Formats: sequence, C-alpha cells, structure tokens
Amino acid sequence: MPLESRHLLGLESVPKKDIELILDTAVTFREIIDRPIKKVPTLQGKTVVNLFFESSTRTRISFELAEKRLSADVLNFTSSTSSLTKGETLKDTVRNIEAMKIDMVVIRHTAAGSPHYLTQLIESNVINAGDGSHEHPTQALLDMYTIKEKFGKLEGLNVCIIGDISHSRVAMSNIFGLLTVGANVAVCGPATMIPRHLEKLGVQVFHNLDDAIKFSDVLNILRIQLERGAASNFPSLREYSRFYGISKERLLKNKKDVLIMHPGPINRGVELSSDIADGSSSVILQQVTNGVAVRMAVLYLIGTRN
Amino acid sequence: MPLESRHLLGLESVPKKDIELILDTAVTFREIIDRPIKKVPTLQGKTVVNLFFESSTRTRISFELAEKRLSADVLNFTSSTSSLTKGETLKDTVRNIEAMKIDMVVIRHTAAGSPHYLTQLIESNVINAGDGSHEHPTQALLDMYTIKEKFGKLEGLNVCIIGDISHSRVAMSNIFGLLTVGANVAVCGPATMIPRHLEKLGVQVFHNLDDAIKFSDVLNILRIQLERGAASNFPSLREYSRFYGISKERLLKNKKDVLIMHPGPINRGVELSSDIADGSSSVILQQVTNGVAVRMAVLYLIGTRN
Amino acid sequence: MPLESRHLLGLESVPKKDIELILDTAVTFREIIDRPIKKVPTLQGKTVVNLFFESSTRTRISFELAEKRLSADVLNFTSSTSSLTKGETLKDTVRNIEAMKIDMVVIRHTAAGSPHYLTQLIESNVINAGDGSHEHPTQALLDMYTIKEKFGKLEGLNVCIIGDISHSRVAMSNIFGLLTVGANVAVCGPATMIPRHLEKLGVQVFHNLDDAIKFSDVLNILRIQLERGAASNFPSLREYSRFYGISKERLLKNKKDVLIMHPGPINRGVELSSDIADGSSSVILQQVTNGVAVRMAVLYLIGTRN
Repeated sequence: MPLESRHLLGLESVPKKDIELILDTAVTFREIIDRPIKKVPTLQGKTVVNLFFESSTRTRISFELAEKRLSADVLNFTSSTSSLTKGETLKDTVRNIEAMKIDMVVIRHTAAGSPHYLTQLIESNVINAGDGSHEHPTQALLDMYTIKEKFGKLEGLNVCIIGDISHSRVAMSNIFGLLTVGANVAVCGPATMIPRHLEKLGVQVFHNLDDAIKFSDVLNILRIQLERGAASNFPSLREYSRFYGISKERLLKNKKDVLIMHPGPINRGVELSSDIADGSSSVILQQVTNGVAVRMAVLYLIGTRN
Repeated sequence: MPLESRHLLGLESVPKKDIELILDTAVTFREIIDRPIKKVPTLQGKTVVNLFFESSTRTRISFELAEKRLSADVLNFTSSTSSLTKGETLKDTVRNIEAMKIDMVVIRHTAAGSPHYLTQLIESNVINAGDGSHEHPTQALLDMYTIKEKFGKLEGLNVCIIGDISHSRVAMSNIFGLLTVGANVAVCGPATMIPRHLEKLGVQVFHNLDDAIKFSDVLNILRIQLERGAASNFPSLREYSRFYGISKERLLKNKKDVLIMHPGPINRGVELSSDIADGSSSVILQQVTNGVAVRMAVLYLIGTRN
Repeated sequence: MPLESRHLLGLESVPKKDIELILDTAVTFREIIDRPIKKVPTLQGKTVVNLFFESSTRTRISFELAEKRLSADVLNFTSSTSSLTKGETLKDTVRNIEAMKIDMVVIRHTAAGSPHYLTQLIESNVINAGDGSHEHPTQALLDMYTIKEKFGKLEGLNVCIIGDISHSRVAMSNIFGLLTVGANVAVCGPATMIPRHLEKLGVQVFHNLDDAIKFSDVLNILRIQLERGAASNFPSLREYSRFYGISKERLLKNKKDVLIMHPGPINRGVELSSDIADGSSSVILQQVTNGVAVRMAVLYLIGTRN
C-alpha cells in the first residue's frame, strides 16, 4: 500500500501506517548499506534535485548518499537567499528547474512553509529537509528508527526532548511523529524556550532536568544553536549547561539507564558532555547511519509511488 | 551523416543541414526525457568537463542534466577569472585538464572567442555555452526547436528579437541560425542597443515596438541585463519598459497572436509583464525543457562523431 | 599479494614491493584511460569521500576522475578549517561522515599528520592527498611512474629535486619513494630552503644549479609557492630565477639531455622558462595523465584489499 501523500512536508499529518511503512522499509536499506556493494538500481534514470537555501553539511551529504545509492541522477543547487533575490523569485527558479523534467526535490530553506509552497508551484515530489523552525521530518524519522532499533517498539516509551524547543524543527517533527505512534512525549528546557501550546498536544513539560531524566527512556538532546543567537534566551552558556546540560554526574544522580540521542553537531560540554556523547548509552552515530537508510526509504517510497 | 564540425562554437558557420540534424536528433531526446527512465547509455565512459568562468545556474544545470542523462562522467570546474590569474593561464589550466584524458569541454567565459581559442589549445571537442557578447549557440538551437515545435517549420516565419541586441550573444546566435534555415529575422530596440551592421545580414530593424509586433509570428524577448550595467543605455527602466516592454495591452493593441519566448531569467514587469510571461502564448518553460533535449542532441552528435 | 598497509599516508614507510605493485597496476589503468570507454566497474557500490580542507583544483579533479572511472560513488566535502572550528571538531566531522558507511577517504589538509590522525578516528581506508609540508605520496608515485615510463627503470637513475625543499611535501615523498626503489636522489636550492637532515637520508645536496644539472638524468622542479609567502626566503623572485630557474641557456650551458618534470601549476619564467616547460624534454603533461592512472591504481589496490 503506497504512502498517502506524494510529498513529505512534515510529520504533523502523516498517519501511523505511513510512519510504520517508512520505518519498516528503512530496515531493508539499513541492511543494504552494510553490504560491500551499497547500491540498488531502484531510482535509475530518475532525477533528484537538492535545493539547499540554507547551509548544511550532514543533512545534504546524507540525502546525496541516499540518492546515489538508489542510483538516481543527483543535482545539487545550493544558493544563498540573497543571490536569488538578485532578480529571480523562488517561484521562477523552481519552475525553471522543474521544466528540465526532474522527479523529486529535496528542499531546505530558512522560511517555514517553503516546502509546502513548493508543492503549489511544481508537480515534482517534494521532501522537506528542514524549513525554518517548522519541521525536519526525516530527522524525526531517523530518530524514531533508532529508538525502535534499540527498544523493539515505540509505543509506550517515554521520550524527552531537551533544549530550545521553540526554535527547533527537530523537536516539532519528533513530537508529531512520536505522538502518532503512541509514545509518551515530554520536553524539558527553560520556560523561555518552551512554546505555550505544547501541553494541548499531549506533551508533558519539564523545567527541571532531574524530573525529565527520571521520566525518560530516551533523551533526545537538541543542539544549542549558538550561531543563530540562541544564547540570548538565557543568561550564559555556563548557566544553560549547569541547568540543562547532560553529564555523567547528572545521569548517575538520577540512577537512570537512558538512551542518549542528539541530532548533531554537538556542542561538547554545553548541552552534552563528551563522556556521555561517546559513552555506551549514546546512539548518536547510529542515528547518522540510520539517517541514510531512512532517507533511502523515503526517496524510494515517494519516488516509486506515482 | 555526421556534423561538419567537431566543435560547436557558434551558429555563424553551421550549415543548414547540421542545424536540421541537431533539431531532428533532439526530437528523440525530447521523448526520452518524458519517460520515467530518462537515461540512455550513449556516452558511458566518456568524460565531459563543464568549464564555467562566468556564473550561471540554468545553463550549467541544463548541460549537467543532459550529460548525466547520456551517462557521461561529469566534472564541474567553476572558477572566477581572478583565481585563474593568480598564477596559471587559461592555457595551462585547460591543457592540464585535458591531460587527464577528457572527451568534451563545455565552456562559458566572459571573453568572446574563448571557445575558439580553446580549440587551438586542446584536442577535445568544445561546446560554447556562451562567450561574452559573441554567441550562445545551444540557446539559439533550443529557441529554434521550440518555434519549430509550435509551427511545424522555421522557414518563412517572422521572428523578432527585442532588447539590447548589441550585447546579446543569444540574439547573435538566433540571428545566424534563423537566417540559415530561411526565417525572416527582425530586431527591435532603441538605436543605442542595435548594432549598425545588422541590416547587411538581412535583418530588419524596428525601433517601434508596435511595428515589430505587427511583423512577428514570434517575439523573442531578451533579458535586460541589469547586473551588467545595461541600464546606462537608456534613461530609466521605466522608460525602457514603457517603450519596449511586452504587456497584454501592447499585444492587444496590435491585435496579434504571437508566440512569446524569453531565454530567462525574466525581469518581470521590465521587459515582460507577468500575465504574458505566464500566459497561453508563452513557451518560456517549454524552452527550458527543450534546452535539455537540444543539449543532449549536441553532446551526442559531437561525442559520437569521432 | 596485497599492499602491506590499508592506508596510503606517505611513502616513508612503504616497502619497495608495494611501490612496484602500485606502479605495475597503474600500467593497466593507463591503458584504460586511453580507450574510448574509460571506465571499469571495479569500485561500483563503494563510496569515496574527498575531504579537502585546503583548496586544490588539479589534485581534487584527478582523484575525482580516478574514482568515477572506477565507478565509485563520489562525495566531495570541501571546507575551510575556519568553518569547521565554528563548532565541530575534525574528529566529530569525520566520525559523522564515516557513520554514513563510506569506504575510503581521500584527505588534503594544511596540518601535517592529519591523514595519520584520521586513521585513529575512523575505520575507512585513508589516502593522503597532501598534508602540510609532510607528504604527498600519490604525486611522488606519479612522478616515479613517469620517470620509469621514459627510462624503463628507476634504479640507478640520478634524480634532482630543485626548489624550496623545506616546505615541499612533493619533495619529501619523492625522496622517500625514489630512495626505496634505488634511485640516486639529490636536491638543489639555496641553503635557506634545504632541511639539514637530508644528507643523513642519503640525499646529495647541491647549492649550485649547474652542478645539479650535470648530475641529473631527471630534474623535478618544484613550484615556488608565492601564495604561501615563499618569497621571504630569498631576496627577490628575479634573484631566485637567476640562480635556480631552469632555462634553455642554463641547460645548454651544461650540455645535458635531462628529463624535465614539474608538479604544476608552473610559475612560468620563475622556476621554469616556457620554452623548456613546453619543450621536447618536458613530461609535465604526461605527469598529469599518469596521475589519474596512478590514483586509480592506489584506489583499486586499497579499495579491494579488505
């Protein structure tokens, strides 16, 4: 049974059966990328355009690898918003690219809603690789894949996302996806970093990290986005780290065996200490590996749907 | 019968039979890029180098897609002229690249004549992707393909190119190509933007847009190159737009059903109004699609010639 | 018999039999890149990451072509050191890239020892494409290949490297490799540019260019790295050129038929005059061609070893 939507714009409206289909399909691709020959001919002769209007290294590389391992033809279009505004609108740019007969567009953009807007402009399948503070659905899917890989299930697990929830597309996609599959979702951070409406969605809110740790089977620790001026939301990095940073002491104090996740790149010693990031409870690098498999699954399911 | 030349430097010296061969061959590739699997193994194991010394998005992407869909190995070499002059001449750069055993070079350069110069330096086939104000032959070929697709012929049609003819490689290539196949070619623009010798070539010159519209089956509207200081050739953009901008009112006034073409990117509201650019007489996006097919035809005919 | 090491970090510790294996294997690939179809499926489904932390055109292109002609999936990761330090260490960056299940990393870095450090961090095979002033092993291998192609042997030949030996990774790799295979190695340059310990390795040191020419079957002329402030080591470029520049007069004066090599790009008229660079004794462009074949051999031998 195919996916309901021919795009992946966010997890807010993706039904449980589709999330399960993506995660199940990713298992096959996870096996393939462990083989000596990490390539299948599934998308041969299809063209995928990576349209990145915001700098990104790991997400772009992960998508590019996923596309190449599916044998697609890959076109990278990286542009600063400024050069676009020099004379051509996003609308004209993407219509022109689509006129070259492409099949899928993977878009990252600073503006929330850009991927949705794209679906109004072009016929190609659109995959959101992060739009402003809105959603980053493939990141949440790879997070869910990694949790399920460890626990064998998602339903009933207690997952807490820690950090600047208000500005995090990773947090929002995780919240939507995890709630859909029946996990218990919590967030933890200073009040200035938690949007008000979350409790209405059924998300538990912690302001005290020890309470959050006691609650959790999984801690998904967000990156403090220093480069986006996140520091203005709390007195100092040291302050943030003292109250919300995950360290060995903090975990031991709460006597908790908890799975440690982080979307990367890590600010070591700020939101997460190195001993925990590199420790036995951390699945941070597995997340990266699973990311390629999950993206292959999404590209495959969408690319062969219509 | 193969093409006469092993390079495509401009349309000035390309005989009618070769233009027809390229346009006929492009029909096949146009069908291929509409298929689910848009790829043929024609140039497998061949190496094509895209040597872009002038920034370009759509032409570079169009060539790159054409090359990949022919299964060539593609190498992108994008450089500002300044970094080249840091120590190595164009001659040394291209000789070094050719020493790596490549097959074809697609070159865009700010200096007119660079592609020709390249043929003196290297053995590879050279395709001009735009050299200064000289020629842009694949753009003209895709324009001609698009006209022929609509009218079923080129001979006897009235085609008028509107804008800054003096600085336009698109205009020059269209003039040479269209005259060769027997179209009636006109240009329209302010006297400061029309080179003097054009009438000797058999090109009709209009300074009044209404006259040009009345003459034409096809209007090929050039982009006002604001970024190259084109604005210095007339009092103001508004002035230009008033006298030479194509709008619905202007077309209706002359009661003319005319095909609208533009090489892109469009300055909406300057040389062309949005209602016309996106209207039913516009084939601007078809030009982009046909561009990939025409470039596949050129790469194929040149790449398999010797 | 496979290579002793699963990495290629430098030629200092590579045994004679491995150098010979690489050079012999390169002969096959040299034939392949002369064919119309320059491609073999050897590394299909393998992923090679080009990790370039220092700008490079010809080495990067040479590796990229070698990888594509072996049918590997290629990922280019080009980064200035500055953007890396923005928040993520080299360690985290490469561990993340490796987590995506790659097979080989080709690294260029300004810091000597980076490729070695990389082998401590990741499981992939590592190939050094130049690390600071330390080594550039594939350059030396292609130099040796080119000498052997001309003379049929390396043993017993007199090879002199001319220029700023102290700061040259090309020089160090050539010295190690050539000594291993039994060539007689000399260097020539001003005292400020010759490291003190070289004679202990068995390298002859010339400060007089005429003596060096008389000694040599092969002159390997280094590029004066103007962009790295090399000019501070001698009074003026003109001075350097007068004492150490290779010109027709200089060679004729010493009545010597000598093979002329240069790793490129050439500062014409500084370390080497144009008549000699482009003359019949020069194999500079053959070096470039052989570079692709030698890199294919290295990638093949390392990539299929484990």
